[in-house]
Formats: sequence, structure tokens, C-alpha cells
Amino acid sequence: MPLILVTNDDGISSAGIKALSKALGSLGDVYIVAPETEQSAVAHALTLHRPLKSARTGKNKFSINGTPTDCVIIGVNKLLPRKPDILVSGINHGGNLGDDVTYSGTVAAAMEGTLLGIPSIAISLAIDPQSNGGLNIKPARFRQAADIAVEYAGIVFKKGLPKDTLLNINVPDILKIKGVKFTKQGKRVYDSSIQELSDPRGKKHYWIGGGMPIWEPGEETDFEAVNNGSVSVTPVHLDMTNYKALKFIKNNWKV
Amino acid sequence: MPLILVTNDDGISSAGIKALSKALGSLGDVYIVAPETEQSAVAHALTLHRPLKSARTGKNKFSINGTPTDCVIIGVNKLLPRKPDILVSGINHGGNLGDDVTYSGTVAAAMEGTLLGIPSIAISLAIDPQSNGGLNIKPARFRQAADIAVEYAGIVFKKGLPKDTLLNINVPDILKIKGVKFTKQGKRVYDSSIQELSDPRGKKHYWIGGGMPIWEPGEETDFEAVNNGSVSVTPVHLDMTNYKALKFIKNNWKV
Repeated sequence: MPLILVTNDDGISSAGIKALSKALGSLGDVYIVAPETEQSAVAHALTLHRPLKSARTGKNKFSINGTPTDCVIIGVNKLLPRKPDILVSGINHGGNLGDDVTYSGTVAAAMEGTLLGIPSIAISLAIDPQSNGGLNIKPARFRQAADIAVEYAGIVFKKGLPKDTLLNINVPDILKIKGVKFTKQGKRVYDSSIQELSDPRGKKHYWIGGGMPIWEPGEETDFEAVNNGSVSVTPVHLDMTNYKALKFIKNNWKV
Repeated sequence: MPLILVTNDDGISSAGIKALSKALGSLGDVYIVAPETEQSAVAHALTLHRPLKSARTGKNKFSINGTPTDCVIIGVNKLLPRKPDILVSGINHGGNLGDDVTYSGTVAAAMEGTLLGIPSIAISLAIDPQSNGGLNIKPARFRQAADIAVEYAGIVFKKGLPKDTLLNINVPDILKIKGVKFTKQGKRVYDSSIQELSDPRGKKHYWIGGGMPIWEPGEETDFEAVNNGSVSVTPVHLDMTNYKALKFIKNNWKV
């Protein structure tokens, strides 16, 4: 039986990880190692300044008081019986599209899996960011996304993944999905939304976030696919070198 | 006068940011907006679950109780008189080489600058990871790295940077630097070092880190350059799409 590591960034109790781990049970032995609490937007953060503890919360199920990346490292090295055959991270409550993949804890867990040589998939349900964190998502939508994760995990088992590359899958939060598009990373029109408030003692403070993202129009992007009702599948590369730029500066920057 | 935003992940009191901001004063008006405390390995994390506060700690100098990415967002949107002409993040106490750029708070600050449309540079002094966090680095080494930051900030002012691309500069911690190499991101042989200890009550816990990184041999990588005594300059792309893989799966994965 294949060994499957499931993790996420919304925390071990979230609806998304429950639907995902249940569905993946049809493919192999599922181990869940996930953060004790919500870790959205923690990106690829590692906890180096304090020790980490794990708690067994069920059969083959562990929570860790750290980030998604911590969960992958501790899970693979200390909690699983052997190196897993695949890692699936999600189902995130919210899309991970465009440049936002660099903030995502869900995608970061799949990055860590990839670094460890494990074929890795991140899967997100692209709910409306204004919908109260997705508390009102219909369970059927998570089941639908989980079935897509199972399908792509099956494909990855059969075909493998290119070197240093993970799959970033985003599923639209609609009943009738149109199809699947293989896409590139889209680009957000950057609009940092910051709320400035005063605390009860009159001291100013800032909250990041809350705005509605606007996307640059672009053919075959992840955002375009999801916005048009299709599943988006993007191969994300851990080698971030801009090779064109490298060639250009080698030839044009005399130093 | 150009407006220069300086930040880092080691915190506003670190030796690296002091040397950097002092040296950049020769090029323009320097504003420092940096984390109150050390934020190593926080990657591109954003603080969304609590408000952020800023404190003015000197002329054009602000600390924020958050991550490097938080500092860039709040700095650009709320603290600086206008959008800066360049962002320089560092000087990091330790190298940011190969896949480790995905964990780095220093590089993440330059990512955030790039997303905001600001030409951005990350600069790190590649000290021995076993050297106690660089507490014993000679100040002259930081001054040497700061001079290199000034040189490349000058080049970027004159020539600009390619779209969605930051410069990741690593400076070897030696007296006589051999030269400068334009490099690609290297690859680490992944070896998660985890220490398993027991607390005073016998409960097991884990510490991540402490191992010595081993690098895959590779021509023209950042690691190779620094290891051979040269400065490494890598253009890092925020578009992480693996275009070759995208073409391949479009043609070969029937869905």
C-alpha cells in the first residue's frame, strides 16, 4: 500500500483536511501530520527558536505546535513509519493563486515535500475571500475538491512529477465544474489593503488584509481558469532563477 | 535624492542592518523599517491574525512587531513619505543560498518589494552556519558587504531590474574577495537535522536545525561562487511556473 502524508495550514481540525484525508484513504495508508492551530499566510516558515511538540490525536494522526513546514519535516523524519510515497497539502479554505503562492502555508508544505524528494500536491478550494474564511462552505464542495486530489494523486503515482516541481491545484467553489486547465501562475495587481485603527488607549495599529484581489488579465493563468469555472493545475518550480535575466545581466552588466 | 527603504530579518538592532543603512546613505535618503525582534526563517509570512504596531526608534527609523514582509507593507504604505526608489534587505547574518531562499525572511522582504513594483535587492553575509549566529563577525566584513550593496544599488538605479525579479546577493565572509559571479540558485542535498530531547517532565520535543548543509555539485551556482571566494549575484524570479513541465503535462497528461 502506498504511504500518503496529508497536511495543511488551516489546522488539524479543519473541514478541508478531513475531507481530503478521507478521500485519499481509497489510494493508500494515510497519515495526517498538521498544525495544531491555523497557520494561514505563514509561507515556508520554519520554527528554529523554540522546540516543537507533537500530539497523537487519533489513528495515524498527529498535531504539531508549529508551521506546515515544521509538520512535514517532523512527520517525515520522526512520525511516519517510512518516507511517504506522496504528500498532499490542503484542502485549503481559500484559493492559492498567482503570486499569493509565496505566502501560502499550504503550498509551502508541498515545497518542503518536494525538497525532501516526495512528489507533492497542494490543493485549495477557491472560495470567495470575503466569505468569512469559508465557514459556510458546503461540505459537498470539499468532497468535490477531495475527489480531484485523489485523481491527481493517482496520476502522480503513475507518471511522477518533473524534478523540483510540485502541483498547485485550485478548485472553483461551484457545483458544476467545467473541466481542468493546465496553467501558469497569474499576477495580482498589487493593492496592499491596510486598516489603521486605534486601540482603547488611543495607540495606532495596523491590520493587513481584507481587500479584494484584482488580477492582471492573462491567458492560461491559474486565476483565469478558476474564474471561468475550471480546475487550475500549475506546475510550480523550486528553482526560482530567472535564467533569461541571468543571461542578460551576464552580457550587459560589466562589473 | 532617491528614497531607499532598508529592512532585514535579523531585527532592527542587528549589526548587518546598521552597516547597510550607513553605507546606503551615500546614495540617497535612507528609511529603516525593520522587525523589532529576530525573524530568521519566517519566509514570506504575513501577519493576518493580529494587529501590527510601529515604533519610531530614531530619525527615519521604525521597528514593527512583525515579519520582514509586514515591515515592507506597512513601511511603504504608511511610514515612508512616498514609494521608495529601491529596497535593500539585509545584511543577513548568514548566507541565503540555493533552495534556502524559500525560507529566508531577508529574501522575502525583497520579494514583497518586487511585488509592490520597487526594484529590490537582498544581501547576505555567508558566515559559517556553525559560528554562533555570526556574533563574532568582524565589523569590517559587514562594511565590505555593505559596499557591495551600494555598488549594486547604483547599478540597479542605472539599469533597472527585469520584471518580477529581485537580486539575491551573497558575500563570502573573507577578507580578500576574488570577484563577482552571476549565478543560478544551487541545490542542497536535503538533510533535515532534528534533535530529539526530553523536557524536565520527560515529555519529548524536537528542535529543527543545527546540521551542516551539503550542496549538490553544480556549475555556476550561488553556493559554488561563494565557496570559491566570490560574491554571488542571482536574479530570482517571482513567477515560479515550471514552463517546461507545463508544456510537457499539457501534451502528455490526458484528462
